[in-house]
Amino acid sequence: MIPVVICGGSGYTGGELLRILSGHPNIEITAVTSEKSAGKSVPEVFPHLHECRHLVYEPLKKEDLLDRAEVFFLALPHGTSQDAVNFFFSKNKNVIDLSADYRLTDPKVYEEWYGIPHNFVSTLRRAVYGLPEIYRKRIKRARLIANPGCFPTGAILGLLPALKNELVDVFSVVIDSKSGTSGAGRRADLSVSYCEVNEGFKAYGVGTHRHTPEIEQELSLLCGKKIRVNFTPHLLPVDRGILTTIYAPMKKRRSVGDIVKIYDGIYKKEPFVRVLEYGMYPNIKNVCGTNICEVGLKLNERTNTLIVVTAIDNLVKGASGQAVQNMNIMMGIEEKTALDTLALFP
Amino acid sequence: MIPVVICGGSGYTGGELLRILSGHPNIEITAVTSEKSAGKSVPEVFPHLHECRHLVYEPLKKEDLLDRAEVFFLALPHGTSQDAVNFFFSKNKNVIDLSADYRLTDPKVYEEWYGIPHNFVSTLRRAVYGLPEIYRKRIKRARLIANPGCFPTGAILGLLPALKNELVDVFSVVIDSKSGTSGAGRRADLSVSYCEVNEGFKAYGVGTHRHTPEIEQELSLLCGKKIRVNFTPHLLPVDRGILTTIYAPMKKRRSVGDIVKIYDGIYKKEPFVRVLEYGMYPNIKNVCGTNICEVGLKLNERTNTLIVVTAIDNLVKGASGQAVQNMNIMMGIEEKTALDTLALFP
Amino acid sequence: MIPVVICGGSGYTGGELLRILSGHPNIEITAVTSEKSAGKSVPEVFPHLHECRHLVYEPLKKEDLLDRAEVFFLALPHGTSQDAVNFFFSKNKNVIDLSADYRLTDPKVYEEWYGIPHNFVSTLRRAVYGLPEIYRKRIKRARLIANPGCFPTGAILGLLPALKNELVDVFSVVIDSKSGTSGAGRRADLSVSYCEVNEGFKAYGVGTHRHTPEIEQELSLLCGKKIRVNFTPHLLPVDRGILTTIYAPMKKRRSVGDIVKIYDGIYKKEPFVRVLEYGMYPNIKNVCGTNICEVGLKLNERTNTLIVVTAIDNLVKGASGQAVQNMNIMMGIEEKTALDTLALFP
Amino acid sequence: MIPVVICGGSGYTGGELLRILSGHPNIEITAVTSEKSAGKSVPEVFPHLHECRHLVYEPLKKEDLLDRAEVFFLALPHGTSQDAVNFFFSKNKNVIDLSADYRLTDPKVYEEWYGIPHNFVSTLRRAVYGLPEIYRKRIKRARLIANPGCFPTGAILGLLPALKNELVDVFSVVIDSKSGTSGAGRRADLSVSYCEVNEGFKAYGVGTHRHTPEIEQELSLLCGKKIRVNFTPHLLPVDRGILTTIYAPMKKRRSVGDIVKIYDGIYKKEPFVRVLEYGMYPNIKNVCGTNICEVGLKLNERTNTLIVVTAIDNLVKGASGQAVQNMNIMMGIEEKTALDTLALFP
Repeated sequence: MIPVVICGGSGYTGGELLRILSGHPNIEITAVTSEKSAGKSVPEVFPHLHECRHLVYEPLKKEDLLDRAEVFFLALPHGTSQDAVNFFFSKNKNVIDLSADYRLTDPKVYEEWYGIPHNFVSTLRRAVYGLPEIYRKRIKRARLIANPGCFPTGAILGLLPALKNELVDVFSVVIDSKSGTSGAGRRADLSVSYCEVNEGFKAYGVGTHRHTPEIEQELSLLCGKKIRVNFTPHLLPVDRGILTTIYAPMKKRRSVGDIVKIYDGIYKKEPFVRVLEYGMYPNIKNVCGTNICEVGLKLNERTNTLIVVTAIDNLVKGASGQAVQNMNIMMGIEEKTALDTLALFP
Repeated sequence: MIPVVICGGSGYTGGELLRILSGHPNIEITAVTSEKSAGKSVPEVFPHLHECRHLVYEPLKKEDLLDRAEVFFLALPHGTSQDAVNFFFSKNKNVIDLSADYRLTDPKVYEEWYGIPHNFVSTLRRAVYGLPEIYRKRIKRARLIANPGCFPTGAILGLLPALKNELVDVFSVVIDSKSGTSGAGRRADLSVSYCEVNEGFKAYGVGTHRHTPEIEQELSLLCGKKIRVNFTPHLLPVDRGILTTIYAPMKKRRSVGDIVKIYDGIYKKEPFVRVLEYGMYPNIKNVCGTNICEVGLKLNERTNTLIVVTAIDNLVKGASGQAVQNMNIMMGIEEKTALDTLALFP
Repeated sequence: MIPVVICGGSGYTGGELLRILSGHPNIEITAVTSEKSAGKSVPEVFPHLHECRHLVYEPLKKEDLLDRAEVFFLALPHGTSQDAVNFFFSKNKNVIDLSADYRLTDPKVYEEWYGIPHNFVSTLRRAVYGLPEIYRKRIKRARLIANPGCFPTGAILGLLPALKNELVDVFSVVIDSKSGTSGAGRRADLSVSYCEVNEGFKAYGVGTHRHTPEIEQELSLLCGKKIRVNFTPHLLPVDRGILTTIYAPMKKRRSVGDIVKIYDGIYKKEPFVRVLEYGMYPNIKNVCGTNICEVGLKLNERTNTLIVVTAIDNLVKGASGQAVQNMNIMMGIEEKTALDTLALFP
Repeated sequence: MIPVVICGGSGYTGGELLRILSGHPNIEITAVTSEKSAGKSVPEVFPHLHECRHLVYEPLKKEDLLDRAEVFFLALPHGTSQDAVNFFFSKNKNVIDLSADYRLTDPKVYEEWYGIPHNFVSTLRRAVYGLPEIYRKRIKRARLIANPGCFPTGAILGLLPALKNELVDVFSVVIDSKSGTSGAGRRADLSVSYCEVNEGFKAYGVGTHRHTPEIEQELSLLCGKKIRVNFTPHLLPVDRGILTTIYAPMKKRRSVGDIVKIYDGIYKKEPFVRVLEYGMYPNIKNVCGTNICEVGLKLNERTNTLIVVTAIDNLVKGASGQAVQNMNIMMGIEEKTALDTLALFP
């Protein structure tokens, strides 16, 4: 049994880590931290996690935690995570960071978008971006995983085959995303209160959302050119799920068959990406609670545009599920372990 | 008091016509039709319309209805409407058609997208597309209004100032729309049943939705070029509202100030279009139950793209409210009559 | 035009007062207060109230406000309201208090349930409980209205005819209520955040909710006996609406016809109570946005129990609509003025 | 591996059987039937069940199915199930019937409430009511399980300890239940369409719901007296979950401690019933996707009434989960097998 510690376990991604890891046969959660819930048992904070009643939240004292785990999951706020990651990593622990602190390889870009400097640039260089569909080999050898953001996961998986195969004009990509409200975290804030969100729908952070440089970094690496994208997130009145609709002009005329073949080819061995039959489109409801990314394809021949629609559960493939997938890969555990639950429908 | 008849009054748009017209001081509803609800009083079909308990649904017998009104609202299925519109129009009645049958000026385009021929081409030529923000003068003199589709209303109002002022590259426009479920009509269908829609979100009719040619027709007229657009509708788990996110590459660099001035200038006298302060974005919840179209603007300077977000209530500005607005204009009634209710929030 | 001031205008009931009074032909809102939103215009706080953009929130300075209105609506927190009510009332103003501070006639009961003493007992004696269906005559002559709580409104209207006619055993009444989330007010609190409420349902304040003594006070007055009830509120994942299911054992066997006759008789002239046909039950959706209380009846002959189901919009008949109804009565305005809007469905 | 057949696998309970049994290590699904979906693979009907893509729906041909399983789950409509159950049972198969056809021990009561005679009375006598918390020993030896209704499960588990211990007056029990919309089944019906249910809430079948005699049968057996109850179901705008609020007058004064002790004592060894700390109440959201029944207790000392609130997932403990629990018991498999998933929250 591999001992793991969850730092920051009282938010929604922390709750999902607890839920998923509770069902993992090869690991044991030895500690879970929360500053504001310190002293409470897990079910006092998350009544649905009655099975974790033996776990009591404790404040994050890095030195005390050090010897209690081989793997540290960090679900801390951006900024806060920098130092904790560096500490555990420097002590030869395996670290999976769910914050954005180690995702942007260029510390200047990080500072520009997050408004604070990166204080651990040499550790940053050791981080591997935890999208197994691109970086599985590097993840196997890594000790520090920067777990991808929820929006980037859906966007990059939608475009990866098209970019790798130079199907589309990379300079005119539109990424229109719609996220369930759990993406905003578990917090007391009027903007996410029930009556403000329910029966509503809006765009936010138009052109300024912090996941933009993360998407651009990975897409640029895939196509070998420095590109910028139009990325707009919207807030959906549902608990979970991100649907991303991507528009990319085709470079030249290609048949539907070609496109399908390319997508199928790249994803057929992926345990958590499912390319739907051409003409079928994903629904966030069908991936709810799972680590699956569903991909739907449409070649709009009237405009010669490739339209890709992807759906993920933002808390699973978009956060904690992918974090466990990364741990499985890193620790040599079968990749699907604890991640093979079916979606709950309806 | 102007006598009006509502043909097709048991669907959601019919219900909204009844609701709005019940509060209209200048009109009297003399008949309402429904084949399947014939013989029932309105509140038996719509318990919330208790005030309409004096009205009993009757089958649509055109000859019998003819003398009972000056204005005929038709909220019939596409295809079915063709003949009824032609009949009332040919008898010198004022007709407002909420179906798509008289929206597309080219009967070949109609046949291509709706799969049936248009049998009344000379009447079709007399129809005015009922978007007052473009055609108010013609609506005043018209006797046949083709009331716009819900998606086209939000899309066209979002792009009108940009196209009129040649701000954007008209050949690369992306229109990503999200509609509440009432847009699917009032019907017994598994695809709109509660448990299938709730907590879900999906794209549908990607690249093939019938509102596409309607949007293209009006945008082409606005910019003077025959254009095609990428239009994708999505199904939102809410009752009402359409949010449309539009991406259009700027032709050349323009300042935010210029863009705001252009939008404000065109819409400042419009009673039902509200351009939000730059940086603010609409929420369907804020227009629920109203005839307002809210418009939010963003110049993404990183990609030199204009992003416009519009919100309407699909059943009001997107259907029955706009129909009443058209009637007001056509009949010389103050345009806002019966349409000045505030949104219900939350 | 009667000048009115709204004290506490940034919560949901305040927003509803603004919405309803904006459409009232006989009144003018001269000021609206809010401590935390002071200096902001109304649409900055409630974007849907664009029509109120001339109104700017100001702090509640009683002396300054005094000369600006004849009628003062107070939508302040319980406890805070005591003093403000007393001030305006003592200055000969008309006061409609939406808090609970002047509802309980016995100051000891008030102190027991609200945990603070009542400091203005002589003013308290002058307050009239603002349920027009019971106290219309007294409201006409009153200058201080204690506007009923949302749960008591639905519960009392459901039982009034049964108690007045001694149909039921008053000592075994069960009142099971389900309220939309707007009943919890507009506030940043984890317990009302979207992801906590959505797809959930729970009871709260079981046997201890503060509306209990208010219900008991009025029911006791109706039946002439001091009674206690079992009252349980539940939190519904909807914005608006309270459905109350009431169980009361019949004293003796009575026919369905008798019961219907009694309810119809008492409510037939009431503008805002609608007794449904026997066997039909209300749905909160059908009264959304209206000042209507719908009442459904069932005589369970197997158990000889009268079951009454009532539905109101908690923010309208349960708060701000009823407050305006009370103002209309008090000021000699036609009772339905500004309150005759139809429900928004769907 | 035990071969099982699911008869009626295209509804929500059928889908849940497929989901749960797919994760069961000791069983193999050898066939699944559906008349209207015959010929389709499971994922064509339930896209979330991609793992079941090897299964194709077939029409229900009893003779053909007979040799393909040891256990037959029947999720067929009431009435239809009678004959199929009898057939498989008479052929010495193990049968778990999710319909109501074998729940009521008295065929006259069945005929009275379901409107059709029971044609297999001798088989009916062999059926065991599948509530393990009462009948575990008999289930172990049974070959025919009448799986309880969803409402009865929540109601009976709430009252069982109180009745067994003669805490309450059994002649005045009120059971007020609120069910998610999946309880209405997967069907194309206007009454369960999204816009009719969303933002709504209503009572239905007041005093006439068919689960009433089932509840009364089991409660009568528990207390040894023939009792009748007031049972009212309501329709909740959520996918899953039933919350039941039960009011039962105490026979005599008892302390909170006594009551808690009694409930804890009876349920402490039950794997799927969780008595919450006194003063805590269940939320359907916390049991979503699980086989757990949560129980909250309140002694209302003002009225000397015991109030019990229970929450279950209507599709799991209220249907398919309990069916699998019964199969586990019947087949000698560890009772929690395939049923230990944690709730999905939020």
